[in-house]
Amino acid sequence: MATKKKGGKQEILGAYKRAGARIETKGRVKLRNRADLALWYTPGVGAASAHLAAHPKDARHLSVKKNSVAVISDGSAVLGLGNIGPYGALPVMEGKALIFKDMAGVDAWPIVLDTQDPDEIVRTVLAIAPSFGGINLEDIKAPECFAIEQKLADALDIPVMHDDQHGTAIVVLAGLINAAKVVKKPFKKLRVAVSGAGAAGTAVAKLLVSAGIKDVIVLDRSGALYAGRSGMNGYKAALAAMTNPRKLQGGLADALAGADVFIGLSGKGLLTAGHIHAMAEKPIIFALANPEPEILPDAAHAAGAAVVATGRSDFPNQINNALVFPGIFRGALDKNLKKITEKTKLRAAHTLAALVPVPKATKLLPDIFDRRVVLAVAKAVQ
Amino acid sequence: MATKKKGGKQEILGAYKRAGARIETKGRVKLRNRADLALWYTPGVGAASAHLAAHPKDARHLSVKKNSVAVISDGSAVLGLGNIGPYGALPVMEGKALIFKDMAGVDAWPIVLDTQDPDEIVRTVLAIAPSFGGINLEDIKAPECFAIEQKLADALDIPVMHDDQHGTAIVVLAGLINAAKVVKKPFKKLRVAVSGAGAAGTAVAKLLVSAGIKDVIVLDRSGALYAGRSGMNGYKAALAAMTNPRKLQGGLADALAGADVFIGLSGKGLLTAGHIHAMAEKPIIFALANPEPEILPDAAHAAGAAVVATGRSDFPNQINNALVFPGIFRGALDKNLKKITEKTKLRAAHTLAALVPVPKATKLLPDIFDRRVVLAVAKAVQ
Repeated sequence: MATKKKGGKQEILGAYKRAGARIETKGRVKLRNRADLALWYTPGVGAASAHLAAHPKDARHLSVKKNSVAVISDGSAVLGLGNIGPYGALPVMEGKALIFKDMAGVDAWPIVLDTQDPDEIVRTVLAIAPSFGGINLEDIKAPECFAIEQKLADALDIPVMHDDQHGTAIVVLAGLINAAKVVKKPFKKLRVAVSGAGAAGTAVAKLLVSAGIKDVIVLDRSGALYAGRSGMNGYKAALAAMTNPRKLQGGLADALAGADVFIGLSGKGLLTAGHIHAMAEKPIIFALANPEPEILPDAAHAAGAAVVATGRSDFPNQINNALVFPGIFRGALDKNLKKITEKTKLRAAHTLAALVPVPKATKLLPDIFDRRVVLAVAKAVQ
Repeated sequence: MATKKKGGKQEILGAYKRAGARIETKGRVKLRNRADLALWYTPGVGAASAHLAAHPKDARHLSVKKNSVAVISDGSAVLGLGNIGPYGALPVMEGKALIFKDMAGVDAWPIVLDTQDPDEIVRTVLAIAPSFGGINLEDIKAPECFAIEQKLADALDIPVMHDDQHGTAIVVLAGLINAAKVVKKPFKKLRVAVSGAGAAGTAVAKLLVSAGIKDVIVLDRSGALYAGRSGMNGYKAALAAMTNPRKLQGGLADALAGADVFIGLSGKGLLTAGHIHAMAEKPIIFALANPEPEILPDAAHAAGAAVVATGRSDFPNQINNALVFPGIFRGALDKNLKKITEKTKLRAAHTLAALVPVPKATKLLPDIFDRRVVLAVAKAVQ
């Protein structure tokens, strides 16, 4: 288990217990005396309240809405742990809030929901939205996540992003742009197989198509999605319609025959050396199942992979959403962006890729601690 | 206007705009390197998530739930401004969050709601409750606030308190305990008229009865509440049944004839010198309408008042909820209190009163900046 790298489970729990909460609040103004209290609380606050009652849009200049993001989960699809509910999700959301502040100065608060009903989730987020400048949805399972995000984005005038979808898609696209350079293949001509048609797989495939790649095939447990395949929900049908132009049918081996790129957002060990042998020359392997990838880097390289990326910090080329979401929301808040659009995502990905001007097989993307990342992504966001 | 004391409205808005948000988040652990990230985010966070999925109650030891309170309003009854909606309410909630941290080290986050439907408010708060260690309801109008609070308190295993009700009631009770000492009258024998049957008036009357005062009369715009009065909603009928033992009918002048105490939670200028002349000797006047009290202290004293308190910081004896709510939630979080009970409130009030062992007409309660207050109230909470 990857968790053993930093002590065992009990050691980690001990550290969490000693920390208690990992984030806290902090006043940005002083309450030293009655004058301070009269200004920042009553009666002074009445002037701000009366103003915002008449001019609600000014909340983003005069209140916590200016710089805050709610990190929201129903706990239905948490890390590799699955549907473990709100309390299970809470440490992850708190960790994201920590990263938001540390990397991008965004004041994020974790909110886990005691409901997994999509309509109830939408109602709840709409109800609490006035307090926040952005909504980061997290670890909500597919296909429910698609409608939840869409309804919220349509109804709200603050940016809404399901990070499992779009954070992942942006960083995968950035990595793939640079991987194509490493293997010297034209990016848009890449043939790509995406294993996994959940939140991340769907968003990755869509963004690769938006970025100009024609030949993207998405596979779920039943094999390749193709237009007209029976038994698909509406989201998969839509995805099938915009991918798989050759209308390939069959399983992973079929999809990978002659493919340039494997992108795994599925599960441990799905990819074999045999699969890689059947791919085009200089195969690119993004084995992103976490913490156990579809194939381990050593095995992938031994089978002939030219470039290998995973979701893990202990191998080269970590495909990590933390390269994306802090900068996306930093930029969105700074620019009062109301929507995270396809253009936003493409610009973020290209900007992220460009931070490594001469990518190598073991260095596709900037380091997570590279302070240029948030600034560049935030600047790119439109 | 009291707001003119610290500059005019534009000056205040300028200060709020320069501050932007008045609270922010702060990491309590460091993210310096990959080892930190592996511990506090992925993969380490998986151990905390797996543990909390199996042991949700441990969220109060291992997560932000340990020390956090949601400060929640629908903006239906904000300060003296009335129903000004969520954006109008946001600065007040943010100010409370600031006070929570500054005075009690509680990590409070402001959440204003884009709904005023009581059932929807209950559903929303229940949905977001797993993230929080306590719920402070604020500025929600009566009578809706009563059922909202009750349903939430019944359903949740974290403390829920509508501060307009109980924070006010506790600090009024504390002040009145000491005012009775000043005028040397036995507390439980006081005859009290409470002007206002909204959230605060109702809670004050109930807590005074709980504290042992027999003769409490509550008045709304139609006059004294008495058992059997027509046209009362269920809350007023219940209040009438537990107050007004003499079944007095009539208006404020009737209720005040011979009364020892006037408690105003109603509106500007309601109390006249004539009213005070008709009261018992050494009348106690709590004119708490804010920012414009039922009578100004000078006028009250000129009419014979022995003790005068208001809600304002620019007169002696400010009856301020900030003496109460930080300590109540500090204690509730520290002791894992699941409910704020009548006993909790009575203990808090008596403790607060006891911090001024020899009260005077101009010094009923401790100063808002007296650091003993939070500690003592938190300690008293059970």
